[in-house]
Amino acid sequence: MTIRVTVWGENVHEHENAVVAGVYPDTMHVTIADALNRAGGISAGTVTLQDPDHGLTPERLAETDVLIWWGHTAHGDVRDEIVDRVCDAVWGGMGMIFLHSAHFAKPFKRLMGAPCNLTWREAGERERIWVTSRNHPIAAGLPDFFELEHEEMYGEPFGVPEPLETVFISWFQGGEVFRSGLTYRRGAGNVFYFRPGHETYPTYHNAHVQRVIANAVRWAHNPAARIANPNDAPNVPVDRAPEKIETRGATLHKAGEAGYR
Amino acid sequence: MTIRVTVWGENVHEHENAVVAGVYPDTMHVTIADALNRAGGISAGTVTLQDPDHGLTPERLAETDVLIWWGHTAHGDVRDEIVDRVCDAVWGGMGMIFLHSAHFAKPFKRLMGAPCNLTWREAGERERIWVTSRNHPIAAGLPDFFELEHEEMYGEPFGVPEPLETVFISWFQGGEVFRSGLTYRRGAGNVFYFRPGHETYPTYHNAHVQRVIANAVRWAHNPAARIANPNDAPNVPVDRAPEKIETRGATLHKAGEAGYR
Amino acid sequence: MTIRVTVWGENVHEHENAVVAGVYPDTMHVTIADALNRAGGISAGTVTLQDPDHGLTPERLAETDVLIWWGHTAHGDVRDEIVDRVCDAVWGGMGMIFLHSAHFAKPFKRLMGAPCNLTWREAGERERIWVTSRNHPIAAGLPDFFELEHEEMYGEPFGVPEPLETVFISWFQGGEVFRSGLTYRRGAGNVFYFRPGHETYPTYHNAHVQRVIANAVRWAHNPAARIANPNDAPNVPVDRAPEKIETRGATLHKAGEAGYR
Amino acid sequence: MTIRVTVWGENVHEHENAVVAGVYPDTMHVTIADALNRAGGISAGTVTLQDPDHGLTPERLAETDVLIWWGHTAHGDVRDEIVDRVCDAVWGGMGMIFLHSAHFAKPFKRLMGAPCNLTWREAGERERIWVTSRNHPIAAGLPDFFELEHEEMYGEPFGVPEPLETVFISWFQGGEVFRSGLTYRRGAGNVFYFRPGHETYPTYHNAHVQRVIANAVRWAHNPAARIANPNDAPNVPVDRAPEKIETRGATLHKAGEAGYR
Repeated sequence: MTIRVTVWGENVHEHENAVVAGVYPDTMHVTIADALNRAGGISAGTVTLQDPDHGLTPERLAETDVLIWWGHTAHGDVRDEIVDRVCDAVWGGMGMIFLHSAHFAKPFKRLMGAPCNLTWREAGERERIWVTSRNHPIAAGLPDFFELEHEEMYGEPFGVPEPLETVFISWFQGGEVFRSGLTYRRGAGNVFYFRPGHETYPTYHNAHVQRVIANAVRWAHNPAARIANPNDAPNVPVDRAPEKIETRGATLHKAGEAGYR
Repeated sequence: MTIRVTVWGENVHEHENAVVAGVYPDTMHVTIADALNRAGGISAGTVTLQDPDHGLTPERLAETDVLIWWGHTAHGDVRDEIVDRVCDAVWGGMGMIFLHSAHFAKPFKRLMGAPCNLTWREAGERERIWVTSRNHPIAAGLPDFFELEHEEMYGEPFGVPEPLETVFISWFQGGEVFRSGLTYRRGAGNVFYFRPGHETYPTYHNAHVQRVIANAVRWAHNPAARIANPNDAPNVPVDRAPEKIETRGATLHKAGEAGYR
Repeated sequence: MTIRVTVWGENVHEHENAVVAGVYPDTMHVTIADALNRAGGISAGTVTLQDPDHGLTPERLAETDVLIWWGHTAHGDVRDEIVDRVCDAVWGGMGMIFLHSAHFAKPFKRLMGAPCNLTWREAGERERIWVTSRNHPIAAGLPDFFELEHEEMYGEPFGVPEPLETVFISWFQGGEVFRSGLTYRRGAGNVFYFRPGHETYPTYHNAHVQRVIANAVRWAHNPAARIANPNDAPNVPVDRAPEKIETRGATLHKAGEAGYR
Repeated sequence: MTIRVTVWGENVHEHENAVVAGVYPDTMHVTIADALNRAGGISAGTVTLQDPDHGLTPERLAETDVLIWWGHTAHGDVRDEIVDRVCDAVWGGMGMIFLHSAHFAKPFKRLMGAPCNLTWREAGERERIWVTSRNHPIAAGLPDFFELEHEEMYGEPFGVPEPLETVFISWFQGGEVFRSGLTYRRGAGNVFYFRPGHETYPTYHNAHVQRVIANAVRWAHNPAARIANPNDAPNVPVDRAPEKIETRGATLHKAGEAGYR
């Protein structure tokens, strides 16, 4: 079974900044998608902020098993109704991977329920990413650590909820540490945050980084059918209770009435 | 040190529904606050949806150690900017307790990042609440279980993230179960969800329920000073890195520039 | 890739108790293995307490992807060195599923680090098992709940650590609840506890129960190569530190010396 | 209410190694206890490996709210029956703090159910300890990070279960990272692991380290009465079931009979 991936790219700095354009002449999202298409068992396409509905129409989401998100300078341009649509898809079972500066992307903040803040420094320093969960599927095929010679620093405290699992922790040359790989589940959807990927460095050309993202796609994929209405809160009438009971006392709702929201 | 509690009441059904008015002649929020004021070490006041800013002015939140929330029929009337303000206070260290139908309250959904849905039935059936975390501070002084003879049923699956700890699970006469006491941490704030409290039943007059809420207030209280800006993501300039480093490679941000949001 | 399962059976009551012999004429472990062999993609065999090394030789464990454990009356007869061997295999990546009364099996207690106690009643009462994690792989293909008309009751508080995820919670006719499906990770090994399966009832003939066990096998299987020495704590000599450093200050260990245990 | 602490010291290297004797002329355990006695609200004493029952008689454990454990070279000399006694006390509600090389202490391994291994290097390198859970009670009064100029390195992967919360992560000069502060709950007992404290360095004279340990004592303290038999698995006879039921089907146990272990 081929896993269908959509890589969402903000698609701004590749066109406005000469350094980024030089590092990612095919754009960041296409670079990520190309690597996934070479990984085996994954079929990846791309959409961007500038597409209608930011590329995330109901039809596209319905055909996306795992959505990957990279954004940085234009978080505020993402429309709230699209954020709601993305969260509904995650809750219904779509996997989602947030990369680097997407820690401040609207759907990440919405799914975390937390400030998602951190400290940062753009100095091209060395990052060393350590595996903390031995033989975790997202770390499959990796050595105990790998290095990125030039990266932006993100430092703790990282304002996210306690994860299900901490898979990676980064060491930075300038003295900071950061939880770089974190897993969550929201509704039926698996969510992974992966830290590396500042746009002025060739991080997404790195084979280890590409492997992590491909591993994370396979981990995040929930093969169950998407839940049609993940927000449904159905009434179970008395005559359909699993055990036979009779209504007692006062009621607020009439029989069959919908609940409040 | 006295813990300062604000009980937020939706304050609708007490005035519109004769049954609720009969059960809670002093309103639900005042009933809850009164019990807390008798518990020792807690000073509780109330605000309502109808107050300016729903009673949740910046000044009020600054003087609130733990906020308790009960709402049901008017979730949609809570203004989004107040929800943001409440979440910021939680992230800065304010404790927060959500009661019963507040599972669909805007701030709960925002803090959970999940659908928070469930199944339900209003039949006045028996609920038996079991302690699942022996000697947890929120269960202090409780027996292994206690019963509410008449309650609304809430059933699994409950669409919330995995909690830090499951403290209570409910058994319902009609055959369902529900995780009734769940702890979370969001930013510096402790969050507790507690299931019982349908407005047509005298649940908040129950001594065990009152004890749980008082215990939860003490558990949720973070005595550290509130974080002034819990969303801050400060730049750490190269010359202030903990280890001496020099900038290498290309940069996107000018020195001292704020990050993107 | 076929997943290799070993079902460990205590193999006592099937021979000593006429009721159990009548319900499980092929023994419980063979019944479980047969169902797994029909599930697809799984090759299951059995071993018993009475086999040399209780059937758990190093060779057998090396060829076992997932070990399933059912025991009840003879927990104390399991030799400690075999328990150590099993735990090492789990830490190295072998999946493990504990069924019902195995909550008091030596390897479960060893892997949990907790008392693993509960309340119980053998009254043939009805158990209703609810899915609490929607579309979790271990719940694949199940309805929201399923029933076992006759089961032993296990009640909360269940003395286990907080799980990674709560997948099932049971409702009992006599009024108790129990966390019936819990996931853990220990070292590189995935561990699942599943409650049902008292030996006087035909639980392991139930199609839903068989499905849960097959799902759990697939979930627990870690395809990575087994870690040869999962207890290794290697010294990293100064000249092989990832960053260039020099030894400073006093040392306790000579260069290359093994650490204390 | 004063919290009663017992600091358990292995008490070997202080007498056999001149460097350690010079750094800790009063021994490590007495140094730690002295600091706690100055912290306020804590009354700390010490026991050692060489005492009868390693100092951990039933009477001593009954009067200990929080036990602190430092050991390194003589883990194997701790008798298994004392380990069982300590675990029972934790499960009953005693708090427990494991320091540094106690990651391989028998009671830590027993409580974790995991290999608890790591990588290490004794080079006197710089360690920088970052707070990862903002305003967590164990981090009260600390800056965002603090430094220990000379420490032994411990590196990931650290073979422990996912914690309830990650409170600290360490950066090491030689390039490694380590989860340095982890919280767990086992039975009714709170457990904290704190990494620093190699015996050839003056770590336990450091004010920040002393503060962490005092904070952890207050966090770990469970004021509830100790559970007398934390391993009890009581039968609930049919006539005492919360809901009225009648026995159906075959039974293995006679009425009132104890369960198997």
